[in-house]
Amino acid sequence: MKFVVGIDGGGTGCRAALATAAGQIVGRGKAGPANIRTDLSRARENIVDAATQAFKEAGHDPALITSTGAVLGLAGTNVGTYAQQLETILPFAQSRVVNDALIALDGAVGEGRDGAIAILGTGTAYLVRRNGKARAVGGWGFQVGDQGSGGRIGRDLLEETLLAHDGIRPASPLTAEILAVFRGDPQDVVEFTINASPGDYGGFAPKVFEYASRGDPVAEMILARAVAAVEASLAALDLDEGMPLCLLGGLAPLHAKRLSPRYQALLREPRTDALGGAVAMAARLFGGTERADV
Amino acid sequence: MKFVVGIDGGGTGCRAALATAAGQIVGRGKAGPANIRTDLSRARENIVDAATQAFKEAGHDPALITSTGAVLGLAGTNVGTYAQQLETILPFAQSRVVNDALIALDGAVGEGRDGAIAILGTGTAYLVRRNGKARAVGGWGFQVGDQGSGGRIGRDLLEETLLAHDGIRPASPLTAEILAVFRGDPQDVVEFTINASPGDYGGFAPKVFEYASRGDPVAEMILARAVAAVEASLAALDLDEGMPLCLLGGLAPLHAKRLSPRYQALLREPRTDALGGAVAMAARLFGGTERADV
Repeated sequence: MKFVVGIDGGGTGCRAALATAAGQIVGRGKAGPANIRTDLSRARENIVDAATQAFKEAGHDPALITSTGAVLGLAGTNVGTYAQQLETILPFAQSRVVNDALIALDGAVGEGRDGAIAILGTGTAYLVRRNGKARAVGGWGFQVGDQGSGGRIGRDLLEETLLAHDGIRPASPLTAEILAVFRGDPQDVVEFTINASPGDYGGFAPKVFEYASRGDPVAEMILARAVAAVEASLAALDLDEGMPLCLLGGLAPLHAKRLSPRYQALLREPRTDALGGAVAMAARLFGGTERADV
Repeated sequence: MKFVVGIDGGGTGCRAALATAAGQIVGRGKAGPANIRTDLSRARENIVDAATQAFKEAGHDPALITSTGAVLGLAGTNVGTYAQQLETILPFAQSRVVNDALIALDGAVGEGRDGAIAILGTGTAYLVRRNGKARAVGGWGFQVGDQGSGGRIGRDLLEETLLAHDGIRPASPLTAEILAVFRGDPQDVVEFTINASPGDYGGFAPKVFEYASRGDPVAEMILARAVAAVEASLAALDLDEGMPLCLLGGLAPLHAKRLSPRYQALLREPRTDALGGAVAMAARLFGGTERADV
C-alpha cells in the first residue's frame, strides 16, 4: 500500500490523517461526529468525509481510499458489535476499529510501548499497557464514574453552593460567586441542572482550580476529593517505577500540579496525539514497514 | 360553607378529601398527576376529577364544588407563577395553593404548630416551623441535592460497585451481588444509567440498608455518608429541645433507626398525612371554624 489513514473520532467530531506507508503525515481532514452507538451510517459518512479531505489536502485522488488501510480510534467500541458493523461498511481496503483510548495511549507513549495515560477532561478514563497487554480502568461516565473529572468537579461545586446557601456547610468566596451567577436563587441552579450535560457542569471546573490556588476552602475541599479519586485510579493501574505516565484532556495541566510526588515523577509529555497514534498503528498494520522508533 | 376540600398532588398522582366545615373527612378520590410546572391544564383536570370522586363517594352532588373552599398542597409551587395561574382556573369558590411540604408538616405535627419534618424518599426535603414561621431546607433534586435520599444511595451503590470492579475500592458481598445483577458487566451498569430516573436508582436503596444491617462494609460506608448528610440537614433546622420531628417518605423507618440519640429523642409519629394537613388548613381558612385540636 502506498498510503495509510488514521482516524480519531468521537461524539463531537472526527479527524483524519493521510500518511505514507512509513507513517509520515501528508494531509489532514475533519468532519462531524463519529458516534457508532447512536448513528452508525452518519459516523461512516463523516469518517469518509474527513478521509476524503485528507487526500485532497495532500493533492491525491480520493478514489485511492479503496486501496488504503485505515486504523480508526473511536469512542464506544467496547459495547455491542458496532465496531465490527462499521468495519464491514467502510470503503477502505482494510479497516481496524479500536478504542479511542488505545490510539491515545499509542500516541502518548509510542505505538505498542508500555506506559499509561490518564484522560482528564469532562470525563475521565485510564489505560495502562504492561508487557504489551493493555488494561482499562474507569471511564464509566458522569453518573456512576468519572471521579475527578470536570463534570464531577462542576457538579460538586453546585452541590456545595446549595449546601452553603442552606447553612448546612460553610460558604466561601467561590460559593458566593457561583450563587451570584444564578442571581442568588437556588431554584435557578436547579433549573440549570434539569438539562445540564456533563460538559455544562465541567464548564465550572477551571474556576474551582483557580479559587483553590488562592486558598478558597470549598474549592480546596472539592479538589482534594477529586485528586484523591484520580490517584486512587492511578494506584489501580499498578504502575512500575519509571513507567511513562501521560495526562491528557483539558484538565491535565491543572491536575498535574496537584498530584503527589510519586506520580509527578512518572509524568511525561505525550509524544504525539491520538491521531498520531492511529497513523502509527495503521503504518505498522497496513504500511508493510517495521515500526519506526520516533 | 358546608364543605371543604383538601388536595395532595404531585408528579405521580393527586388525592382529594371532602370534609365538613369542621374538618371531618366524608369522602375521598384520586386521579392522575398534578404537575403544575409541566402541564397546568392536565393538573387542573386531575384535581377536579379527584374532587368530583370525593363528592360522589360521600353521596353529594359534585356541582357543589363551585361553592366549596379548597387547599391544594402541590409540588413545584416555589417556581414561577404556576400556583397563582392554577388558583385562577380552578372551579372552587376559593382556592389556596401551597407547597406540598407545608401540608405534610401540618399533617405531621398539627396545623400551624411548631415542629419539623424530614421527607426521606427518592428525594429529600426538610421543613421546620418555629413561632409559626416555616423555613425549608434542601429539596434541590437528585443531581445537586437530595443527599441521603434513595436516589443518591442507589447511585452511590452503583458507583461503588464499579470502583470495586476496577480494583480501586474494596468489594463486598453487596457489590458482588449488584455486579451479578448486571451480568458481571460494568457496561450493563452504564447502559442502565443512561436513562435511569432518581426513582430507578432509589430502587437499590433498601438493599443497601438490608446489607448494612448484616455488617456489609460497603453498605455501611454508603449509609454512614447518607445518615451524616441527613443529620447535617437536620442540624441546619436548628431544632429546639422537645420540638417534634417527623420522618416521612419511604426510607423514613430505615433512616430512623440509624439517627443519633439526639434526633431519636425528638422523633414523633406523624399525626396524619399530607392530605389530612390540607383538609385541616382548608377547614381553618374556609370552614368558618376554629382549629380543632386533634
